[in-house]
Amino acid sequence: MGERVAMISLHTSPLDQPGTGDAGGMNVYVIELSRRLAAQGIDVDVFTRATSSSLPQVVEAADGVLVRHVAAGPFEGLTKGELPGQLCTFAREVLRTEAMQPLGHYDAVHSHYWLSGQVGALARDRWNVPLVHSMHTMAKVKNTALAAGDSPEPLSRVIGEEQVVEAADLLVANTDTEARQLVDLYDASPDAVEVIHPGVDLSVFVPRGRARARRELGLPADAVVLLFAGRIQPLKAPDVLLRAVGVLLERDPSLRHRLVVPVVGGPSGSGLEHPTALADLAADLGISDVVRFVPPVTQRELAVWSSAATAVAVPSYNESFGLVAVEAQATGTPVVAAAVGGLTTVVRDGISGLLVDTHEPRDWAASLRRLIDDPDLVERLGRGAVAHAQEFSWEHTAERTLLAYERAGSRMRAEMAS
Amino acid sequence: MGERVAMISLHTSPLDQPGTGDAGGMNVYVIELSRRLAAQGIDVDVFTRATSSSLPQVVEAADGVLVRHVAAGPFEGLTKGELPGQLCTFAREVLRTEAMQPLGHYDAVHSHYWLSGQVGALARDRWNVPLVHSMHTMAKVKNTALAAGDSPEPLSRVIGEEQVVEAADLLVANTDTEARQLVDLYDASPDAVEVIHPGVDLSVFVPRGRARARRELGLPADAVVLLFAGRIQPLKAPDVLLRAVGVLLERDPSLRHRLVVPVVGGPSGSGLEHPTALADLAADLGISDVVRFVPPVTQRELAVWSSAATAVAVPSYNESFGLVAVEAQATGTPVVAAAVGGLTTVVRDGISGLLVDTHEPRDWAASLRRLIDDPDLVERLGRGAVAHAQEFSWEHTAERTLLAYERAGSRMRAEMAS
Repeated sequence: MGERVAMISLHTSPLDQPGTGDAGGMNVYVIELSRRLAAQGIDVDVFTRATSSSLPQVVEAADGVLVRHVAAGPFEGLTKGELPGQLCTFAREVLRTEAMQPLGHYDAVHSHYWLSGQVGALARDRWNVPLVHSMHTMAKVKNTALAAGDSPEPLSRVIGEEQVVEAADLLVANTDTEARQLVDLYDASPDAVEVIHPGVDLSVFVPRGRARARRELGLPADAVVLLFAGRIQPLKAPDVLLRAVGVLLERDPSLRHRLVVPVVGGPSGSGLEHPTALADLAADLGISDVVRFVPPVTQRELAVWSSAATAVAVPSYNESFGLVAVEAQATGTPVVAAAVGGLTTVVRDGISGLLVDTHEPRDWAASLRRLIDDPDLVERLGRGAVAHAQEFSWEHTAERTLLAYERAGSRMRAEMAS
Repeated sequence: MGERVAMISLHTSPLDQPGTGDAGGMNVYVIELSRRLAAQGIDVDVFTRATSSSLPQVVEAADGVLVRHVAAGPFEGLTKGELPGQLCTFAREVLRTEAMQPLGHYDAVHSHYWLSGQVGALARDRWNVPLVHSMHTMAKVKNTALAAGDSPEPLSRVIGEEQVVEAADLLVANTDTEARQLVDLYDASPDAVEVIHPGVDLSVFVPRGRARARRELGLPADAVVLLFAGRIQPLKAPDVLLRAVGVLLERDPSLRHRLVVPVVGGPSGSGLEHPTALADLAADLGISDVVRFVPPVTQRELAVWSSAATAVAVPSYNESFGLVAVEAQATGTPVVAAAVGGLTTVVRDGISGLLVDTHEPRDWAASLRRLIDDPDLVERLGRGAVAHAQEFSWEHTAERTLLAYERAGSRMRAEMAS
C-alpha cells in the first residue's frame, strides 16, 4: 500500500460539529479514520465541498491530514437534493488539484456516501488507483423501511448508488447486515465487500469505576441501575425494558427501594408523535417511581451514566451496528441486548454481556435478574466488556481499512490483467 | 483548427425525431451543424446518453459524424430533473472513450445545454482543448418571464449554468439577444460571446413559385394570402394580424372576396387555456369567412404554405431568433414582422420584408396594405428575401462555428500563458 489516500466526503466536512445540520456520524467517521491512518504513516487528503467563504482552501486538521475545501456551487442555499448538479464541478476541481501535484500523487481513493462515490469512480479511472467506497446509508434500505408519511429516496440516488457499487474495487460495510444488503439489494459481489466496524472513542468511554460515577450523578452506591440510552422511538424498544422492570417488581416487590431505571434520551422519529407515551406506560405499569427520564446528554456525560449502571439494556428491534452497546461496554458495564442485527457481533453472549432472543418482557426480566442476583457475573462480564470493546477502537478500524486499500489494489490489478 | 470535435449533447440525441419528448430544436441543431462541419472536413463525435437498449454503441449518422451512445443511468424512467445525478457517470464514460483513442484525439469540445456544459468543462481540462458552449435556453431568462402558475427553474440549474459560462473558452449565442442575456444575466465577458445564427434547411424551404404552391393547396391564383404560422399563444400575437385584417376590410370591403388568412398551427402554452379564443375573435371581427384555421403541418407542407402566401406575418411580442421568418423568406415570400428581438436581424426592412414598430392593428394594416397595393414591391422583397435567407444556411452556421473553435483555442492558449 502506498503512502497517500484521497478521502472524498463531498457533502459533510470532517471539520463540522456532529449533530449540526447534515453532520451526523459520517463526519466523525471520516476525521477519526483519517487521523488514525495518518498515525500509521499514511498521508490523507480529505476533499469536501466548501460551505463558507471563511474557510481556507487547505486546513491541516491533524498531523498528516489535510482538509481540502473544494469550490463547487454557492456556500449556502444548496440542499442535499441539489448536490447531484455539483458532482461534475466537484470532480473537476478534485482532478485539477491532483494535476498540480507530481505524477501518481494518490495511491487510493476512499469515498463516503454515494455522491462522493460518483466522484471517486471518475478519479479512480483518471489516476489509475483503486476505489474503496463506504455507503454509510443506502436508499434501498431506507425505502424498504419507510414509516407512513416519509417520502422515499429518489430513483436518481438508487441509480447513483448502483453505479458506485459497480465501479468500486472494494466496498467497506460497517456491519454484516450492511454487507448482506449490499449483496442482496445492490448485487455487489460478496468478494468485493469487506466488513469493517467503525470505531468508538475509547478516550471518552473509559471504565471510571461504578462508585465514582454514581457519586458524580448522585445515585445510591448500592442501587441496581438498569440504563436505557438512545432515541425514544418504537424501533429502540425502551418499552420492553419498562415492561421487564414491571415483571421484576411484581415478582420481587423488595427490589423497588433499590432499583433505578434511567432513560437517557429524547423522543425522535415516529416517537415524536407520542412524546409522553413512555411516561404513560411507566405510570400504567406502576413503576413511575423507579423510572427516571433524563434529556439527551453529551458523549462525556453518557460515559458517566454508562459507568454508573449495573447493566445497559439495548432492546432494539434492529441495529445495523449498535454503537451504544460498544460505548457501554467500553466503560466496563455489561450489556443486555436483543439478539438482532449488529448487536449479535457487538455483544459477546456470556462474555461481555447477555443476548436475549426475544422481546418478551418475561425473557428480559429473567436475563436482568441473573445480573441482579450475581454481582460476580456483573464483575466478570464488565471485564470482558472492556476487553471486547477494544476491538472497536478507531486504530483497529484504520488497520483493517489499510488492508482493504491493499486488497482493492490487488483486485484492480487483477481486473485490468484479465 | 484541428480535425476532430467532441460534440456533447447529453439529454437529447441528434438521432431523435424533433417534436417527440424532449427533442425540440436542439437535436436538429446538433445534427445539422455536425453534418455541415463534417462536410468541411471535420470529424465529429456526438456524445449522447443512451436511452434504449436497441441502440448500437456507435452509429454513423452521416459521413464523418459518429453518434456515441453513452451508458449513464437506465434507458427509461429518468426525468430531465434527475439527469444532474448522471453527470459524473456520463463524464466518466466520455473520458473512458477518449482514453481508448490515440493521444490528443479531440481538438475541441462543443457542448449544448448546461448539463452537457458541465461535462464539457471537465473534458476541456483533461484533454487540454478549448470548450465552446451553446446554452440554447437559460434558466434566468425563463424565470424572468414566468407565466402565472409556471414553476421557476431550480437554483441548481442556475448555478450549473453560471459555472459553464465561467468555464467555457467561448460561448455561442444564437442571437444578439441571447448574447446580451449572457453578458447581463450571467456576467459573461462580451469578448467571450460569439453570435452565430442557427441555420435553416434550405433544401426544404425553397422558392417553388407562388402559382404552383397555390394550385397544390387549392388557393385562388389571384388571392391576397396573408399567412400566420406558429404556435397559437398570446406571445406570438396572431390576434394582431386578425385585428389588422379587420381594419383592412373595414376600409376596403371590396378586398373581402379575394382575401385569405390562413392560421397554420395549434394552441400551445398559455394559448391552451382558451383554444377557441382566436376563432371567437375572428367571429367578433366579422372576418370568419376569410380566416382559415389549419392544424400543425410538416416542414415540407409549411414550405408550400409559405410559398403560396403574398406575405407572412410574424407579429410576435418577442422572438430570440425568429426561425419562421427565415423559413418564409427562403421560399421567396416577404415577411411583415414586429421590430422586436431577433426579428430585427432576421428581416431586413425594405429589402426582404417590412418591420412594424408597434403592435397596433392600424400600423399593421398600413404595412400589409402597401404590399397588397404594390405587386412589384412584393416581387422585389421576395427576391431580397431569398437572397437574405441564404445567410442563414447551415453551411454558414458551420463556417462561423469553425472559426469560433479556432478563436476559443487562441483564447485558451492566451489564458494559460497569462
